[in-house]
Amino acid sequence: MNDEQLHAMRHSLAHITAAAVQRLWPEAKFGVGPVVENGFYYDIDLGEVKISDANFAKIEKEMRGIINYGDDFERFEMPIDQAIDWARENNQPYKEELLNDLKRSGTTVAKDLDVSELGLAADGEAAVENVSFYKNGNFVDLCRGPHVHNTKDVGVFKLLRVAGAYWRGKETNPQMQRLYGVAFATQEELDQYLERLEQAKLRDHRKLGKELDLYTVSPLVGAGLPLFTPRGTVLRDIFSQYSNQLRQAFGFEKVWTPHITKTSLYETSGHWAKFGDELFLVTSQETDDKMALKPMNCPHHTQIYASKPRSYRDLPVRFLETTTDYRDEKTGELGGLNRVRSLTQDDSHVFCRSDQIENEINSLLSSARELYGTIDMNLRVRLSYRDSGDGYLGDQSLWDSAQAQLKSAVLSNDLEYFEVEGEAAFYGPKIDFMAMDAIGREHQVATVQLDFVQPGRFGLEYNDNEGNSQTPVMIHCALLGSIERFLSVYIEHTGGWFPLWAAPEQIRILTINDTVLDYVEEIKQVLTGVVLMTPVKYNELRYTVDSRNESLGKKIREATSWKIPVQLIIGQQDKDDRQVSVRTQDGETKVSLDALADYLKQV
Amino acid sequence: MNDEQLHAMRHSLAHITAAAVQRLWPEAKFGVGPVVENGFYYDIDLGEVKISDANFAKIEKEMRGIINYGDDFERFEMPIDQAIDWARENNQPYKEELLNDLKRSGTTVAKDLDVSELGLAADGEAAVENVSFYKNGNFVDLCRGPHVHNTKDVGVFKLLRVAGAYWRGKETNPQMQRLYGVAFATQEELDQYLERLEQAKLRDHRKLGKELDLYTVSPLVGAGLPLFTPRGTVLRDIFSQYSNQLRQAFGFEKVWTPHITKTSLYETSGHWAKFGDELFLVTSQETDDKMALKPMNCPHHTQIYASKPRSYRDLPVRFLETTTDYRDEKTGELGGLNRVRSLTQDDSHVFCRSDQIENEINSLLSSARELYGTIDMNLRVRLSYRDSGDGYLGDQSLWDSAQAQLKSAVLSNDLEYFEVEGEAAFYGPKIDFMAMDAIGREHQVATVQLDFVQPGRFGLEYNDNEGNSQTPVMIHCALLGSIERFLSVYIEHTGGWFPLWAAPEQIRILTINDTVLDYVEEIKQVLTGVVLMTPVKYNELRYTVDSRNESLGKKIREATSWKIPVQLIIGQQDKDDRQVSVRTQDGETKVSLDALADYLKQV
Repeated sequence: MNDEQLHAMRHSLAHITAAAVQRLWPEAKFGVGPVVENGFYYDIDLGEVKISDANFAKIEKEMRGIINYGDDFERFEMPIDQAIDWARENNQPYKEELLNDLKRSGTTVAKDLDVSELGLAADGEAAVENVSFYKNGNFVDLCRGPHVHNTKDVGVFKLLRVAGAYWRGKETNPQMQRLYGVAFATQEELDQYLERLEQAKLRDHRKLGKELDLYTVSPLVGAGLPLFTPRGTVLRDIFSQYSNQLRQAFGFEKVWTPHITKTSLYETSGHWAKFGDELFLVTSQETDDKMALKPMNCPHHTQIYASKPRSYRDLPVRFLETTTDYRDEKTGELGGLNRVRSLTQDDSHVFCRSDQIENEINSLLSSARELYGTIDMNLRVRLSYRDSGDGYLGDQSLWDSAQAQLKSAVLSNDLEYFEVEGEAAFYGPKIDFMAMDAIGREHQVATVQLDFVQPGRFGLEYNDNEGNSQTPVMIHCALLGSIERFLSVYIEHTGGWFPLWAAPEQIRILTINDTVLDYVEEIKQVLTGVVLMTPVKYNELRYTVDSRNESLGKKIREATSWKIPVQLIIGQQDKDDRQVSVRTQDGETKVSLDALADYLKQV
Repeated sequence: MNDEQLHAMRHSLAHITAAAVQRLWPEAKFGVGPVVENGFYYDIDLGEVKISDANFAKIEKEMRGIINYGDDFERFEMPIDQAIDWARENNQPYKEELLNDLKRSGTTVAKDLDVSELGLAADGEAAVENVSFYKNGNFVDLCRGPHVHNTKDVGVFKLLRVAGAYWRGKETNPQMQRLYGVAFATQEELDQYLERLEQAKLRDHRKLGKELDLYTVSPLVGAGLPLFTPRGTVLRDIFSQYSNQLRQAFGFEKVWTPHITKTSLYETSGHWAKFGDELFLVTSQETDDKMALKPMNCPHHTQIYASKPRSYRDLPVRFLETTTDYRDEKTGELGGLNRVRSLTQDDSHVFCRSDQIENEINSLLSSARELYGTIDMNLRVRLSYRDSGDGYLGDQSLWDSAQAQLKSAVLSNDLEYFEVEGEAAFYGPKIDFMAMDAIGREHQVATVQLDFVQPGRFGLEYNDNEGNSQTPVMIHCALLGSIERFLSVYIEHTGGWFPLWAAPEQIRILTINDTVLDYVEEIKQVLTGVVLMTPVKYNELRYTVDSRNESLGKKIREATSWKIPVQLIIGQQDKDDRQVSVRTQDGETKVSLDALADYLKQV
């Protein structure tokens, strides 16, 4: 089944859902019902009536009735004024509002809605005269289509959840009930999807974040501002360190910049005009300074570059900084680590000559490949080029050369890739990295972005070998992206079973009784001497001892619920034999005390 | 000479300065002329006339004339209304303003001035009736005294500088000229002071910060918000790492908190009421959240403590975080790294039982002692206790026990100390550390502060061994204090000659000619393998190679101006003999290539 067919199927199911709801609650008022990833939803206003999971069986039964009855989806058109009358007569005020907007302003009607879901007969570029409807059985809906031929052709589906949603996303509008369903061509695909969903629930980083004591949120501090506990901070630090270590090997040097700035920095960079209303503003009570929290780091880094004269021999200049940016997200969109207001970037900026681009990109790609390889995530990259349109800044020849260098670097790193024209930013082409997690979901992670514009806006210079002033090219790159978002992906990817090198608590010694405590001291001495060198250097072992007077079974259960990768179980026999019983996810084995250090370095 | 005598001498010199200025510029209007550290100043309004360094000899000559003439300082009183008339008649509007304020409101007159400098006859607690004057020769000044007997008794002095100063420190008031002088009992003391001043100038961290490329400021980013270059960032990181390492050995664990918070956090902690107007306020454009940049970290850390139940067995809980706080300092007070708006603290908080205080303080004192010992700064500590007044929160018995534990920890760490009653904060006693730099200046650095109040305000708890809920005690401690301020002290303490372990560029290889380049590769391999383990662990060598086609003399001069602690000079002879010529501040020596790694570990 191709994507268009799947789309029509899911969209038809949205209509069938609405039809079923209308049969059950004839007073239902409908908003929009678009297709989304893996399924569809419909926004419904049922007044005081609240749909709950308990109603799903009833609605699904009604839907199956409609499907089995086998009505055709019939398309028809009517003039827009007549459509408005239809909406009013049928007590559908939301449809009426959409139609009125549509009449007033054509396709620009609803920036907040997916226009393709509206009942637009034409492309809507011109004035709207007719709108299209679809009818199945008694149910009529304003709709652009297309739909499947008959209600029997909708594959398999399942209602999944219901959630509150403001009409057109505005908090001042009425709250509707958004009823979500998933749908696939075959039962097998649906089952696979539901299984993956089940897995995703178990791996939910918000659930694991709490169970594994990785971070917390405080209502006194605010939404989207997570605080990291000691365990979570180990994860933050070790990944930041890894990301830094990879780039330091290629000559990147750490810098430090403050988290606030006068807005003049962004007026110069051009960000203020574009993103000024997405910033947290900072007010000084002592001065009139107009300030903001930094939402990105490139403008700050340009000021370090600009702090002294540079020659072509000094280039590339490579700055690296793990630092926290602040973005004024709507609090309604905040949750867990996925979307936060405090996002810590493992950011870097290269300032180089245009002939140095490929080599720099090569280093960054190889760093990204190593990082995601280490954590068992498959990478593929999207190469975003300019198209023939105007609005791109920088010489065409610079673009051509840069795009060729990007592609060459991707090829020589043997990365799976695809190319998209017209997806570049106006200031330069870029490479986006997509990483696939353990349950088959793809996440956008690292980015490498060329920038032909900011260096000029900040008047950055270097002297070329003839003493002439030239403008460098800038390369933005974060390997992890936002560390918070990366951790949300990584926690779910691993299900909280972090590998030895990254685990906050790597090893727990579990004693069977107190007679082994002297032997435990010897083991601790061995562990204290072990420093892992790969993938992150100078990684001292983090271990604890559980010598409580509890049963071994209980100790093992607890250590396992903490997902500690290595448990060392120590009883009298182990002491006598000068060995340890090592318990990992792979099973249990005996290792002699003398061999323990080497064993752990190879886990 | 005791402090009172020195004070009278310096204050008398302030009068003599004003008298000399009045002789030279009879239209001079005078503000106040207090004693300051090592000397005195007088604020003077000369209208359009600007005093410059070039005038100092002339003024000093006039002063010496007055001194040699040998007038007595004569004290007399007059009723305040008569004094006001005197000021008006003598065209001294600033004195007139002070007298009017004094008449109106007694000692509360001038919170912005040191009242002791005013002409207060009585202690001023009651209404002011008479004010005192001092007269030497023709010069009369409103003054409380005391003064020396005769102008001949003022020791030796020197005018040092002149600077603009707003009348009474308010930017809306007229700007006056503040003429500074220094004075000592003997010429030897003055010479020593001037010599130290000269040294301090050479060591000025703002000068060295630029010469050694450690940090920069950008007008686009703003005042008091320094940006750290790669070299400066090495210093930041290595000291933060050292400070962390010392405390991690005592069980401290790193945490991470965001830089902003809802102000509700500070309303709960009590900081909002006290310091609300010293904060940078943060405005969300998406929500109504009332927010601020954090000026300290304790309230954030309480929220991590509060994120799960704690038992007496879990205590002490020890959090460590190097993080940047923001304080809304007046921009006029900002300069270099000494006073900044972005201050990075190597902060830590212990949550413990009251019987655990001494042990925790012990760990912190021993960490501080080791850190300042390593950098050759003598420490002494001030123990600040409560007095018998009220206004202190927490049980008297808790205070008694805590103060005894603090002192016991100080004694067992063999630290020079002094005790001050009545200097404790209302929420607990504290220890302040003073460190003496290489030219004899003392700087307040680390602090250890007990806190009996915040844990209660945040409702922090632990279960004691009988299952009852108890409130923990909190111990605040930063070893470096603010890293920026610490660096301003440390750069001046070392004069930029950082020890090998801390130097941004530790080693530079200087080639005599190109025939040794293959041998340089061998040396680089040795250097790459060296990892210093003390005082900071895992400290990989930071080295560069200067193989330019320049004279060795020029290369050495440049490396020396960068204050690189170890220069390795490589010529054909060194290659032939498989050795290196090592040049340090101690001189030059030959080291065989085989012994180089061990040699560097012991520099």
